[in-house]
Formats: sequence, C-alpha cells, structure tokens
Amino acid sequence: MSIGAATNGAAGLPVPSHNTQAAATATTSPYQHIADFISNVGKFKIIESTLREGEQFANAFFDTETKIKIATALSEFGVDYIELTSPCASPASRADCEAICKLGLKAKILTHTRCTLEDAKTACDCGVDGVDVVIGTSSFLREHSHGKDMAAITKQALEVVNYIKSRGVEVRFSSEDSFRCDLVDLLSLYRAVDNAGVHRVGIADTVGCASPRQVYDLVRTLRGVVKCDIECHFHDDTSCAVANAYSALEAGATHIDTSVLGIGERNGIAPLGAFLARMIVAAPEYVKRKYDLHRLKDIENIVAEAVHINVPFNNPVTGFCAFTHKAGIHSKAILNSPSTYEIINPEDFGMSRYVHFAHRLTGWNSIKSRVEQLGLHMTDAQVKLLTTKIKAMADVRPLAIDDADSIIRAFHLDLQERDTTKIWEN
Amino acid sequence: MSIGAATNGAAGLPVPSHNTQAAATATTSPYQHIADFISNVGKFKIIESTLREGEQFANAFFDTETKIKIATALSEFGVDYIELTSPCASPASRADCEAICKLGLKAKILTHTRCTLEDAKTACDCGVDGVDVVIGTSSFLREHSHGKDMAAITKQALEVVNYIKSRGVEVRFSSEDSFRCDLVDLLSLYRAVDNAGVHRVGIADTVGCASPRQVYDLVRTLRGVVKCDIECHFHDDTSCAVANAYSALEAGATHIDTSVLGIGERNGIAPLGAFLARMIVAAPEYVKRKYDLHRLKDIENIVAEAVHINVPFNNPVTGFCAFTHKAGIHSKAILNSPSTYEIINPEDFGMSRYVHFAHRLTGWNSIKSRVEQLGLHMTDAQVKLLTTKIKAMADVRPLAIDDADSIIRAFHLDLQERDTTKIWEN
Repeated sequence: MSIGAATNGAAGLPVPSHNTQAAATATTSPYQHIADFISNVGKFKIIESTLREGEQFANAFFDTETKIKIATALSEFGVDYIELTSPCASPASRADCEAICKLGLKAKILTHTRCTLEDAKTACDCGVDGVDVVIGTSSFLREHSHGKDMAAITKQALEVVNYIKSRGVEVRFSSEDSFRCDLVDLLSLYRAVDNAGVHRVGIADTVGCASPRQVYDLVRTLRGVVKCDIECHFHDDTSCAVANAYSALEAGATHIDTSVLGIGERNGIAPLGAFLARMIVAAPEYVKRKYDLHRLKDIENIVAEAVHINVPFNNPVTGFCAFTHKAGIHSKAILNSPSTYEIINPEDFGMSRYVHFAHRLTGWNSIKSRVEQLGLHMTDAQVKLLTTKIKAMADVRPLAIDDADSIIRAFHLDLQERDTTKIWEN
Repeated sequence: MSIGAATNGAAGLPVPSHNTQAAATATTSPYQHIADFISNVGKFKIIESTLREGEQFANAFFDTETKIKIATALSEFGVDYIELTSPCASPASRADCEAICKLGLKAKILTHTRCTLEDAKTACDCGVDGVDVVIGTSSFLREHSHGKDMAAITKQALEVVNYIKSRGVEVRFSSEDSFRCDLVDLLSLYRAVDNAGVHRVGIADTVGCASPRQVYDLVRTLRGVVKCDIECHFHDDTSCAVANAYSALEAGATHIDTSVLGIGERNGIAPLGAFLARMIVAAPEYVKRKYDLHRLKDIENIVAEAVHINVPFNNPVTGFCAFTHKAGIHSKAILNSPSTYEIINPEDFGMSRYVHFAHRLTGWNSIKSRVEQLGLHMTDAQVKLLTTKIKAMADVRPLAIDDADSIIRAFHLDLQERDTTKIWEN
C-alpha cells in the first residue's frame, strides 16, 4: 500500500459522511465538556511563535522572504497574533521585524524581548502592536542566568511595563520556567504588573516539566489573583504541551503560544496543528468559524521545507496515517459510521480518510466495500471466501493495493465463468 | 550545522554534569509532586503493544523474525508485558504467537482478542501468560459495530473471564471507546467482572478524544469501584496520549499501554519513549532502576526500519533536536548548569546535549565556550568582538560549524600578529 494512496485517500473505501457534533454529544456520560464559567476552551486566542520560538529550532534560518511568506500564511489562516524574534538579536532581525509590521496583516504583530528599557524601546520603534517581555524568575535561572533578586526583578518589570504602555503599545509580562518558581514570588510579581495595567501575564513551562494537573492548579490560582489576560507557553520535552495548553484554557488562560509543527528550542512547543486537533474536538464551531483549517497542511509544508524537516509520520491531522483505519473490527464500524472510530472529521481540514483492506487483519466488510468500489457484484458468501484468500496471501508478504485488486478481479472473473468455489478453495 | 553533529553531540560545547533530582526538588513551589497515596506514578507497569496495536499501523507488516527481534528487545529493555495480535487474526499470527511464547522471555506474553469463548480458547491454547479481551460498549459501537445490549455484554464478559481463569491464565477485560460509554453501564460491567476475579479492567480511549481531567475523573471513580488492577490505553489523535497516561496513573491506574514510536491505528497511541520521558521526570529512580534506557534508541530504530518510517524530528529524547540549545540566553545558562533548561538528563538515555553557537541568536558565552573547546585563549572583550562578527555573518546566511570555527581561528591568528581590533571592526 503506497503512502501516497493513504495520504490523498483516492484509493480509500467510500464511507458515509461524518458528524463530529453527534460524536461529542450523543452520550449520557458525565465525562463530557459541560458549561464551566472559568473555562476559555470555547474562546481562546493563538499567539503564533514560529517566527520567534521557531527560529530557535536547531535547523531554522529564515530569510526575509521566508519570514514574510510564513507571516502572511499564518495571518490568512486566522491566528490572532504573530510573534517575531527580538529586533535586538541582530540587524536582519530588526529589519525583518520592521518589514513585517508594514505588511498590514490582519494578525497583530508582537516581538519578544528581554525585560529591559533598551530592548523595549527598540521593539516599540519597529512599529509592533505589542511587546512580549520575559524575565527568568525561577531559583535556577536567578542563580545561573541573570542573578537578580525578586525586588530588583519587580522594579525592572514595572519600569518596562510602564514604558511600553506609554508608547501606546500592548505589553505582556512573562516569567520564564514558571513551574519551578516560588509560587509566592510569582504571584506577587504578577499582581504588581497587573496593577500597573499590563495587558497579559505569561506562564511559561520553559523546560517542559509541567503536567496537566499542575497547570490547571497554577493557572486557576493565578486567575484569582490578576484581572488581565493569561498567556501560556508549553514546551514539549515530555509530550504534554498540547494537553497542558488545554488544561490551561480550562483553568481560565486566554492565549496559547504555538508554532507550526511545534518547532522551537530542543523539541519545541505546542504545535499549531496538534493544538487545533485538540480544540476542534472541544469547541468545533468556534474553531471552524475562526480558522481557515484547509490551509493547515500548506502552512506546515512551507515551514517543513524552510527548516529541512519531514512532517512526522504521526502528526495529528496531516500525518500520512492520521485517518487510516486497518483492523477488521475498526474498518467494519467506520464503514457504517465514521464517528465510531474518528473524533475529528478529516474533511474539516481538507483531508480524507483511508480504510486499509489489503492485509492480514482485514475483515470481509472492508473487502465487500472494495468490491463495490470496483463496480463488481458478489454475494456475501462469495466475498467471505475471497477475504480468506486475500488474508492468506497477505499473511505471507505485504500486499500492495494493486495486488489486492488483481486478486479481487481474478476471483470475480472466475465467478462468472465456472464453479469458483472449488478452484479457489484449493 | 549538520544534523549528525547535533545528534551525537561530538561537536557540542562541554557543559557541567546534570542533576535531575536537584531540578525536581530545589524549589518551594507547591506545584511539585507530593506524596499521594492513590497515585501510581512511582510504581506503574508497561504493557508494550507494538506487536498488537502497532501491527494495526498503516505501514506495519512484521514477519516472524522481526516479531521475535522486537519482542526480545522489549523484554531486555524491561517492559512488564508484551501484547501480541490475536492468534485468530490469521494462521501466521497464531504461529508467531506460539513461537514467541516459547522464547522464555522475561516479559509476560499477552494476546488481545475479541470477547468470545472461541477466541479465548485459541489464545489459551497458544501458551500465553494472559489474555486481554475487549468489547465495544459505547452507544456508537453498540449501534454500528456488534449491536449487543449491556445485559448480553455482561453475560458474555463473565463467561469469557471465567473460562480464561479456569485455564490458569491472567485475564484483562476492557471496554472500547470507554470515554463515550454510559458511565453507569461501564461501572456496572466492571464491577461484575471484578467480582468474577478478573486481573485487570481496561479503560480505552479508542478514538483519542479524552482530556487529562476527564481521564483523572473516570479512573479515580473506577478506582473506588473495583479492587483489581486498572490498565489504560490512549490514542494520540489530539496529542494527549502521554498526558492522559500520566493523569491516569495519578488517579490510581496501574498499567499503561505503549508502542514503540506510538505506532498503531491512525496516528497511534502513547509512545514508549515519550511516556518514559514523562515518567523519568516524575519518578527518576524507579524508571532508571527498572528500564534499560540506553536501549531505547536501538529499539526505536529497529521498529522504524521495520515499518519504513523516520523517527520524527521532534521525538522526545531521541529526536535529533531533543537536547539542542540555541538562543543566546538559554545557551549561557545551560553552560552554567544544564538543569536550568533541561528537565531530562540526556546521559540517562545514552544521549548527548548540543549547544548551537554558529547562528544569529548566539551569545558571547557560547562563543567563549567554543573558543575554549578549540584550545584557544582570548579575553572576554576579544570574545565579544568575535561574537559580533559571527552574528553579522550568520545574519546573512546559515553558518556551518566549520565556517564558525574558521572565523574563530582566523580571528585568533590575527590576535597573535597585529592590532586585531582595527582590522575586525571594519
């Protein structure tokens, strides 16, 4: 079976249409999404950081043209904010930041700088809509990175926040490595910048250590301390970034950082596509209305090409096997109703499903469906006999779709000419 | 910068040794793991399903030799159980199951069958240590798959459980699509099989719809209803499989299903490596004592080769960029203390970290470290001047490590011969 066939679904078995809504609601289980006044699962915003966090990915080198192409595609996709590398990082970073601000994109343009007046001034001078400032507050960072104590950090934070506000620009203040900070220090600092009128505070799992219940607890606590929006940034070192983002929204966070395919420092952050796969299950109408999901695959391809990587085989939604069904018991049910084994409708993302039938785990329902797809006619008893034959051959070596179709056609030809049962039972 | 260099770390900057333990405890934040008598985070077992769930992966066709190689490697790695495709799936599946049972591996051998007496008998005849039986119980599956009502399901479950126990074999009973089942139906069924002496009940997120808080709530509720062990199986359609597994253990689950690289139906289940990345952060001593983590990369390579896939670029632990650091601010801190930006010690898995320095986001600390690594001597002021030069060149095009080293050596040569400052400031 070729990967191409599985990806575009052209050779897949035809199945009835899909209804995600029904899947999400047609049960009496209490373990479903219920109204929760604190949750922002149905009204989150995306801060897309491919051009900031993503530039810290090992393979990333974005020239001006590529940055503009990615920024434009993300804005058309519908992300709320696009975050760029600090203009202080290098002369080209500054020039690119200025150029992207002048494009007049629908998405707001942010840049991400150290928490200093100098960096904040440079950022504002570039024409950004907002500045995301960050400072390390964990005991690890205080000891090994900048070495400042909390009083000094608070003073510096307030100066920078007030300066950026005075320039009429949106400002976010974030700690780094928030889950290893002292909780009281963190809440004191955030309350101080909230009182100074910061637009957002940021929680960052810089090392990827947080688990969903830790995230829920910290964001829920913070939600009771500050009035401003809450942005969250999760690294994926332990594969919890998307689940942590979801838990944060349940606890009242408002903004989630993503990057295309998750690229960033080490193995990166919450990937845009995987995050939206999670969110479309929870808030299908909001996600489908707000984001042009059919563009996802193209955007991923643009970024994958720019940083010389392959889209992972198991990438949610766009990975080649995301909607491929194989086991006999699964295929039978999928053919009756896709919602049985699919929580996401591939069509929402312009993708197709594919039901595998040429392998030893196959069931006769899949073969029957393929027989019909080929325009042939057989009784159920004949299809069952044919299925045994295909399974026996697929038990010896992998069968390509052409092989299986040849067996089906040969069997059908025999049916029309003679006593097939005897010949094929040998 | 070549990927090879990043992977083996040979060209990376030298950094002090790593202390995960310190990272996990040296803070006063309450958002850390605290003693919790219900949690099994520190004493979980792994049911490795590459040879069952993994065989349902689109590209999978394992011949006998490959199955034996994978089973042996997994047993040596230290997984508790190895789950095989049902011997009823095909004649080769049966022969392979019998062959693997005869290997005398340290891991217990399970097979996974439909909940029927016929399948259970065939499984027991193969010599397995345990049979995992499964039946669809969600309203979706009852309508579109087998069509049985709950009374009939319960009767059938008890017959099969009693039969397998009568053969002296371990038995697990699982529902399919547990998160879309009626809760009362589910708990009634599980209590019935628990009273019949089933060894484990299984919760399966067959469609990948569950979120961590749903998982915690359902497993926590079930923990209060049954005395037996609780196994959990999470699909990764919305990137929550590992986080869900972790939440399940926190709520009292005892066994987690994994597959190598997560291969399985659609985009698969919780990957063995990613799951252990999560667990080593939470329970470092248990994980390091129980599993031979240095074998992980080899096992992933065996499976990737067998199913013709590449290890994803962002795979936790073994992906080429898992321990690569790039931003100037990160590299500076990593050079002082790895725990600052790493929650996992790469050495625990036989991997190395790599600090990128030949790019426009670099900082002078990284360059200084590289200068020292090359055995050269410069003052800090000289290194800062050199850094400006390297950043300027990396701003125009990507720099290979050789390019950067050439610049460093040329600069150093000039230092020894003449008034470098003037020349390099041009």
